Amino acid sequence: MPRFKARVLVRLRPSVLDPAGEAARSAALRLGVDGVQSLRIGKAVDVQLEAPDESEARRRLEQLSDRLLANPVIEDWTLEMLNS
Amino acid sequence: MPRFKARVLVRLRPSVLDPAGEAARSAALRLGVDGVQSLRIGKAVDVQLEAPDESEARRRLEQLSDRLLANPVIEDWTLEMLNS
Repeated sequence: MPRFKARVLVRLRPSVLDPAGEAARSAALRLGVDGVQSLRIGKAVDVQLEAPDESEARRRLEQLSDRLLANPVIEDWTLEMLNS
Repeated sequence: MPRFKARVLVRLRPSVLDPAGEAARSAALRLGVDGVQSLRIGKAVDVQLEAPDESEARRRLEQLSDRLLANPVIEDWTLEMLNS
């Protein structure tokens, strides 16, 4: 069965505060790295999945992202297929 | 001053166990999502940064990634410039 590689990027919605990102931005200043205007920390989930075809792989990955990887109340996700 | 957008992907090194990813993989099975061979959870850090030019922006982002965003003992990082 073909194996598909994908990356799911999970990000906090723009309206949601990101204290960890804000802390990293302050730390950047103390470290002497100037000019950081915005820094937000999300998740990058690398998945390898076996499925009969790409559309079925995509369907399963969307289900996974919706129900397991992201919290839809505060997060958005995007799916990138890396090869086929 | 021009503003640059970048994404830093921070991943656990291949030799490092990822218990959270493994738990998500098991949960996928229980959820009825079949065929997940591997699932590893990393960080996706979205940064907006002002710098005089792209090479300086890149230099600062590399410094940030090396010293703040990734733990070099267990993690690798890659930098993607998203526009210029």
